Amino acid sequence: MRAHTPRVAGTALWAADAHSQPRPEASNTEAPYQALGCSIFPSSTAPAAKQAGATLQQEEWGDATHPLLFIQLNQLLSTSVGLEWRETARWMKFEEKVEDGGERWSTPHVPALPLHSLFQLRTCLQKGTMLLDLDVHSFKEIINKALSEEAELQPEVRERLADLLLRQPRHQPTKSLLQLLADLGLSLCRGKAKSWSEPGAQLSETPLKEQLRNRFQKKVPRGAEAAHVAVGEVEFLEKPFTTFIRLRQGVALGSLAEVSLPSRFLFILLGPRAKLKAYHEVGRAMATLLTDELFQRVARQAEHREDLIAGMEAFLDEVTVLPPGKWDPSARIPPPSCLLSLHRRPTRHPPDQQSHSNGDMAAAGERAGLGHPHSREELERTGRLFGGLLRDIRRKAPWYGSDFSDALHPQCLSAVLYIYLATVTNAITFGGMLGDATASMQGVLESFLGTAFAGSIFCLFSGQPLTILSSTGPMLVFERLLFSFSQDHSLDYLEFRLWIGLWVAFFGIVLVATEASYLVRYFTRFTEEGFCALISLIFIYDSLKKMLSLADAFPINWQYRLDNVTSYSCVCNLSSSGHSSAGNDTPLPSLLAPQQPAATLARLSRTQCLDRGGHLLGTSCQYVPDVTLISFLLFGGTFLSCTMLKCFRSSRYFPAGVRKLVSDFAIILAILTSCAIDAALGLETPKLLVPSELKPTNPTRGWIVFPFGANPWWVCLVSALPAILVTILIFMDQQITAVILNRREYKLKKGAGFHLDLLCVSLLMVVTSATGLPWYVSATVISLAHMESLRRENATSAPGEHPEFLGIREQRLTGLAVFVLTGISIFMAPILKHIPMPVLYGVFLHMGVAALNSIQLTDRVRLLLMPAKHQPDLTYLRHVPLRQVHLFTVIQLLCLALLWVIKSTAAAIIFPVMLLALVGIRKGLERVFSLHDLSWLDSLLPEAAGKQAEGKQPSSQKEEESHGEEVGDALGAPLLHSRPRGCSGAGAEPGPS
Amino acid sequence: MRAHTPRVAGTALWAADAHSQPRPEASNTEAPYQALGCSIFPSSTAPAAKQAGATLQQEEWGDATHPLLFIQLNQLLSTSVGLEWRETARWMKFEEKVEDGGERWSTPHVPALPLHSLFQLRTCLQKGTMLLDLDVHSFKEIINKALSEEAELQPEVRERLADLLLRQPRHQPTKSLLQLLADLGLSLCRGKAKSWSEPGAQLSETPLKEQLRNRFQKKVPRGAEAAHVAVGEVEFLEKPFTTFIRLRQGVALGSLAEVSLPSRFLFILLGPRAKLKAYHEVGRAMATLLTDELFQRVARQAEHREDLIAGMEAFLDEVTVLPPGKWDPSARIPPPSCLLSLHRRPTRHPPDQQSHSNGDMAAAGERAGLGHPHSREELERTGRLFGGLLRDIRRKAPWYGSDFSDALHPQCLSAVLYIYLATVTNAITFGGMLGDATASMQGVLESFLGTAFAGSIFCLFSGQPLTILSSTGPMLVFERLLFSFSQDHSLDYLEFRLWIGLWVAFFGIVLVATEASYLVRYFTRFTEEGFCALISLIFIYDSLKKMLSLADAFPINWQYRLDNVTSYSCVCNLSSSGHSSAGNDTPLPSLLAPQQPAATLARLSRTQCLDRGGHLLGTSCQYVPDVTLISFLLFGGTFLSCTMLKCFRSSRYFPAGVRKLVSDFAIILAILTSCAIDAALGLETPKLLVPSELKPTNPTRGWIVFPFGANPWWVCLVSALPAILVTILIFMDQQITAVILNRREYKLKKGAGFHLDLLCVSLLMVVTSATGLPWYVSATVISLAHMESLRRENATSAPGEHPEFLGIREQRLTGLAVFVLTGISIFMAPILKHIPMPVLYGVFLHMGVAALNSIQLTDRVRLLLMPAKHQPDLTYLRHVPLRQVHLFTVIQLLCLALLWVIKSTAAAIIFPVMLLALVGIRKGLERVFSLHDLSWLDSLLPEAAGKQAEGKQPSSQKEEESHGEEVGDALGAPLLHSRPRGCSGAGAEPGPS
Repeated sequence: MRAHTPRVAGTALWAADAHSQPRPEASNTEAPYQALGCSIFPSSTAPAAKQAGATLQQEEWGDATHPLLFIQLNQLLSTSVGLEWRETARWMKFEEKVEDGGERWSTPHVPALPLHSLFQLRTCLQKGTMLLDLDVHSFKEIINKALSEEAELQPEVRERLADLLLRQPRHQPTKSLLQLLADLGLSLCRGKAKSWSEPGAQLSETPLKEQLRNRFQKKVPRGAEAAHVAVGEVEFLEKPFTTFIRLRQGVALGSLAEVSLPSRFLFILLGPRAKLKAYHEVGRAMATLLTDELFQRVARQAEHREDLIAGMEAFLDEVTVLPPGKWDPSARIPPPSCLLSLHRRPTRHPPDQQSHSNGDMAAAGERAGLGHPHSREELERTGRLFGGLLRDIRRKAPWYGSDFSDALHPQCLSAVLYIYLATVTNAITFGGMLGDATASMQGVLESFLGTAFAGSIFCLFSGQPLTILSSTGPMLVFERLLFSFSQDHSLDYLEFRLWIGLWVAFFGIVLVATEASYLVRYFTRFTEEGFCALISLIFIYDSLKKMLSLADAFPINWQYRLDNVTSYSCVCNLSSSGHSSAGNDTPLPSLLAPQQPAATLARLSRTQCLDRGGHLLGTSCQYVPDVTLISFLLFGGTFLSCTMLKCFRSSRYFPAGVRKLVSDFAIILAILTSCAIDAALGLETPKLLVPSELKPTNPTRGWIVFPFGANPWWVCLVSALPAILVTILIFMDQQITAVILNRREYKLKKGAGFHLDLLCVSLLMVVTSATGLPWYVSATVISLAHMESLRRENATSAPGEHPEFLGIREQRLTGLAVFVLTGISIFMAPILKHIPMPVLYGVFLHMGVAALNSIQLTDRVRLLLMPAKHQPDLTYLRHVPLRQVHLFTVIQLLCLALLWVIKSTAAAIIFPVMLLALVGIRKGLERVFSLHDLSWLDSLLPEAAGKQAEGKQPSSQKEEESHGEEVGDALGAPLLHSRPRGCSGAGAEPGPS
Repeated sequence: MRAHTPRVAGTALWAADAHSQPRPEASNTEAPYQALGCSIFPSSTAPAAKQAGATLQQEEWGDATHPLLFIQLNQLLSTSVGLEWRETARWMKFEEKVEDGGERWSTPHVPALPLHSLFQLRTCLQKGTMLLDLDVHSFKEIINKALSEEAELQPEVRERLADLLLRQPRHQPTKSLLQLLADLGLSLCRGKAKSWSEPGAQLSETPLKEQLRNRFQKKVPRGAEAAHVAVGEVEFLEKPFTTFIRLRQGVALGSLAEVSLPSRFLFILLGPRAKLKAYHEVGRAMATLLTDELFQRVARQAEHREDLIAGMEAFLDEVTVLPPGKWDPSARIPPPSCLLSLHRRPTRHPPDQQSHSNGDMAAAGERAGLGHPHSREELERTGRLFGGLLRDIRRKAPWYGSDFSDALHPQCLSAVLYIYLATVTNAITFGGMLGDATASMQGVLESFLGTAFAGSIFCLFSGQPLTILSSTGPMLVFERLLFSFSQDHSLDYLEFRLWIGLWVAFFGIVLVATEASYLVRYFTRFTEEGFCALISLIFIYDSLKKMLSLADAFPINWQYRLDNVTSYSCVCNLSSSGHSSAGNDTPLPSLLAPQQPAATLARLSRTQCLDRGGHLLGTSCQYVPDVTLISFLLFGGTFLSCTMLKCFRSSRYFPAGVRKLVSDFAIILAILTSCAIDAALGLETPKLLVPSELKPTNPTRGWIVFPFGANPWWVCLVSALPAILVTILIFMDQQITAVILNRREYKLKKGAGFHLDLLCVSLLMVVTSATGLPWYVSATVISLAHMESLRRENATSAPGEHPEFLGIREQRLTGLAVFVLTGISIFMAPILKHIPMPVLYGVFLHMGVAALNSIQLTDRVRLLLMPAKHQPDLTYLRHVPLRQVHLFTVIQLLCLALLWVIKSTAAAIIFPVMLLALVGIRKGLERVFSLHDLSWLDSLLPEAAGKQAEGKQPSSQKEEESHGEEVGDALGAPLLHSRPRGCSGAGAEPGPS
């Protein structure tokens, strides 16, 4: 407990001749040498830091949450109406200064100080008045107290000082765009409108209207305190007047600060005419010092002047210096995206320069010591049958109630809307593709029904309810293969598929029982990326192929000549004796056919003609004008507008809310626009086929698939073979997504459920197979978008500071709502059939490109094309030799090419096995690359990580402990790269996998 | 003259117990307080800086050009084969470090140091050996000398140290992409290939092969010297061994440095095991200190240890400090785009924070004091008739010889090719547009001829031969108006135009005689931008309008239904009794006409039918399939590929040379690609109309226009009225361009010739009018591209440093060659007629958009849409209140809208007068905005600048003197903004004006 009487730590002993050298006081003069001094020996800990540490020992580090400090710098300026206090800068974490025009806050930036001014500040603290734990209730009292400490001041000077200090400062309010425009209007009407109080007025005891209306208030978290720094030139002073005051507790000082907060610290520096901006810089130095968390602690705890000086020395000991001439001091450094946490501060040595002094292996060992990023409790083997499943259920059951109550937040509503639109878009596009691949045995309606059903069930019972189920690319590939196989061998597709589904479900349950999900730990980035790149390429390739096939469906007459317009015609020929060559003969012969007057014949439409067994004759019959080209325009337009609207999020225009909204709804907006344009033009573009009633898309099938009847009996046994392939596919597809969703950086609290998820998917296979609905597994990108839309961040963050990520709103309700809404959308069929196919292909192309852009592989392929000096400063490039990076990329590309070839040739059916082979290839890479390189380019496989951990040198053990956290973050950073970025990231794509 | 014997400035007095406090030596201990100390009083100049200044006084500042220092940091690392010296960082101006993998140089960055290590370095310099002006010839001698100074060392330790220091360091060579790929291949074949010498080898006396092959050599300018910093931990040492050595002159030390340079400075720090990276940081601090230009001077001149310490204090006095916790020390700060020059360094206060302490008016006064940026000798009035012209001739005549000899440089060849392509593209596009506007009275052929003729003449005789003449947008507008006026009033267009041209030439000569070009000083950014924006908008509008008019020329049957394919036909009807309604009646009636067999009739093409007086009947006659849509695809494709290829320059891919090439040839590449696609598809898209022979495009005209005959006699008098308008237009168009080209930032040495240029343009008007060729004035954007392609920059620049701009290669030959080539291109006509019009419209759209993007107005319009916090950190935003910026933008937009309305309505003919009115409006703005704001947003008008200069307060005079240069640069920066940027700038557009 500290004494409550103000301690006057030192009186004004400042020599009258300020030019003279400062009196060498033992403790102060030696301090810089102790702190910043000469020794380069390992054991030397700076004494100042020690002293500062001692000051802090009184408090416990853990729960010491101090209120945030808001620091305002008021400067005395001579204006046309005399001296005036004006706010010229403010700090929460970063500095914001009032720009030259005096009407605008600068962007927040890192406060860069001249070293000079820090030393001047130290002198000020050493020589000036210091009142610690002052117990007062108004600013007037503070001023009187401070002035009375200055014994040397003459009474009239003291009076003038008090008068000056008590004047109302002019603050710089933060205005909204609307207020600004209103001001602009006002200033046009009646010149410069100054709504602020006139200068020279006394400080108000109560907060002003402007203070309360200040929009900056929103940025200040509850419980924050204010610190005031006031500096200026005063002509009637002969030597500087400096005071540092700490109030015993926060006191509201009326209109002193821009926002009304309890004040805690005051620093006043007034002096005679000095060098340009000298006082301003000292004021900035004081304010910057006060923003430092360590110094804040010291300042709150300090009992003597020496404590404060020691805190400052500790600060100086840690500063970074930029050399003159290499850096323009007026340049503003933007706030870094991540700050070192307080606990890691005293290390002083940046983590990435670590391994130079200890060789490469130590660093690799450190990272390996972290273990595999996925190796967590969820993936440990119990060794018992269904042991993992039981654990999953036991882990998730306690959260079941909160999985619903946690959803009661407005954010969930917007997430539902967003993910609903993404899911519907996905269901439409996949439904369309599926219908295409299976001759409408599964179509858009089935896709809607299946998504709604499977999704809802999964959300209710799964281990990771944030997952969104969807048809995925590999499944589409498989269905296409299966259907054409059935056709070629005259098998009933749906019945065959039912048996496969049943087998898959069985194998799935076996996998759950044997806890096979622990194999997930072998899915490293190498596997994930190969898989994801393949899916993306399939999307891109398919959409382009579809578009080109339109040119076959609606051929263009490239030879069309305007001059020959009279020679183009097409007539119906009902006589079976075909006049195959048109153009040289006129349609006359058919005119002569009995009972067919020419007029009627000409009026027969194409369908009527073909229905009556006729055929079309003429030079224009096989051509369809304009449709193909307009399709390409719609396709390109949709793709470009999707991409541009997505990128709108990271543009500078419009407030963040509008941008986010547009970007979130980018795809649906692009679809709507393109549909509107298509409808307005009125050409007969190919449209989405949707049934208008609630019946299967293909009229030949029913809602229930019977297991026997259409196919030979042995088919039900043989289907176990393809089922193995599908099982591998589903296992890979489902678990890769699950691994990505459960990554450590998402800070999930309710844990994962790999086994439970797989069980749900397997059981759903039974139902969807029996009803002939598409099969569903987790969709990576859309699930990530779901999670991103449920991010929790701390609401108030200091200007320039990035909001802190708190975690994900883990619950089951948003997913459930999304799928229920999807089910209801079936009645939208009459609307859906207006969507042109080229538009959907455009969306697909966008999805493929966006997903391809989101993986590190693409970055590395780009590196292949870049000269080394233009390459971005990526973390792995700092640590892995470029040629190893290139080699890794080339190997990945070769694997991808192999997968593509297999997928495209007759061997397509073994494609899932090849996916699994990726894991084997990854294992083989350990022979080519060092574990150090692999740990940066990829993750380590479990046994490799173990080996690394064992082989670790004991000498690096200590460092590992101290830097483990940092390296963990460094590892986390590249992993975060694989989150969808597109143009700005945040996984807003309804994705392909 | 300094003595040539090495001065041992201090022997090793280092206390055995390095933990003890440093011995307080008077001169050294006090230094930091003197330098960084306490006084905030105006007259205090830091004594250290004074001392450093005294050291420097011996040399003259002006011509003291020291060789550049290359600094290499070698660090002693313990590898698997024992201790090894390894290069870990290097400096020229900025720091490059060897990345963790040891195979890669980081990007150059500002060296950020811990303050701590600087203080440790100071101690090292204070305590270690110091050998100044050592006169030796080999590294061995140096080491022996240095070790012999250390009296305390035991002989065996000395021997081991010598052995260690003389080992060959392993350098980090800079490799090309090819070498890297070769290495990659090698490493695949036979494991890790280490071509470097084995560790432990002795330092070579002669340069190694690797040193000579090092690509980094190219970056090091001739005459550079090397400095070596060697640091490391040595277990057998008990206390640090520090030496700072200056050689009397540069000595080649064999393979010590990465590149073979004469060495000048050496700093060695070896010591016992210390805290992690302590030695590394001290080494970095020494190297950074040596990169500082001021410290380099001190180090070269220093006679005693104290001089060096003082130089370091002066360095410390200027450093900038970044607080801990607000900035991640491992982040790398990219080199700033412009560095403070050495002469301005000691001011220490960033210029933009100037006005805070002295109010706004002082700053405005400073800038105004600079005077008008255009007010130079060329634009002063002599008061005599043709006085300006005579001066121009007198100024340019002495350079005439060098105008040809200066062109003998390979750069000029590439400039010729580039500008030729741009000029030809321009001639084609403008020729096409002109032909369109004047019913082919002027067409592409005339455009080529005229460009070639006028351009060559202008290049030979003009005042500013870097200017490229071209048809410009406003001229096109005027010709269009003139032609339709002639048509409406049945006047002969060419004869009317001849008289206008003659009058314009007369008025032009009058303007030259009266030195009217001095009015150019009233063309501020406001006028320039209004003009430029209007031209750009005309381009964009025209190209879009043209494209939409294609839909009228080639109508699409939006109602086309595939099913009704049989009902679409078109036949020729030769009977005058028109069957107006087609479709309900078959073509039978016409069949019944005598002597017209149906087959023949059907074979009649459209032209044949119309020629025979028939008309076309049928539902498909008025439609042309596909042409419009393919035109839109070509249009969009050309526009996008132009834009993307242009932006390729600033991408990261491929070496800079390839990027520059692609970007320079972007437009021609885009045109060629689009033409190839169009030709491959084979549709009948509208093509460029080019005559296949050397005769006027319109056969009704000849090569000479006769002044009398076709029009009434009074026309030749009346044409003086439109001639006034054209004169204004030409004057504005020509002089705005000339002002931009002669801007101070281009560092032109041969001076401008505003009057001579205008005379040339006027005289050319006579010839082009008489021959019916288009009129020509300077084209802003293409001329800027010409200048940019002739930039001279210093060849070698340190890594991270931006190359210094030396000036423009001013000569007449490139322009002349361009226009001669253009003339020859007339025989390209058979090729040119394959270019589709939509492609040219796409290029036009690109030109318009690029030019619009290049002006500050566009930036400010964008600001209107941005929330304040997202706005970029533009210079004028720091100084002018946002609402004033917005107001200025809104006024400019209103002016632009007014100009547009006038241009589009019947009042179009007075459009040139309105352009001139912009100057008046700009004058009026002085009532709305303060001169301070205007000086940032615009330039000041001459009288306003004068007023400002007069009204300047005497108190700000001194500051102005000291900061004039900085503010000049600050003013220069926004002006530079108006240079064409596009995506990356450098004015590579063949431009619209």
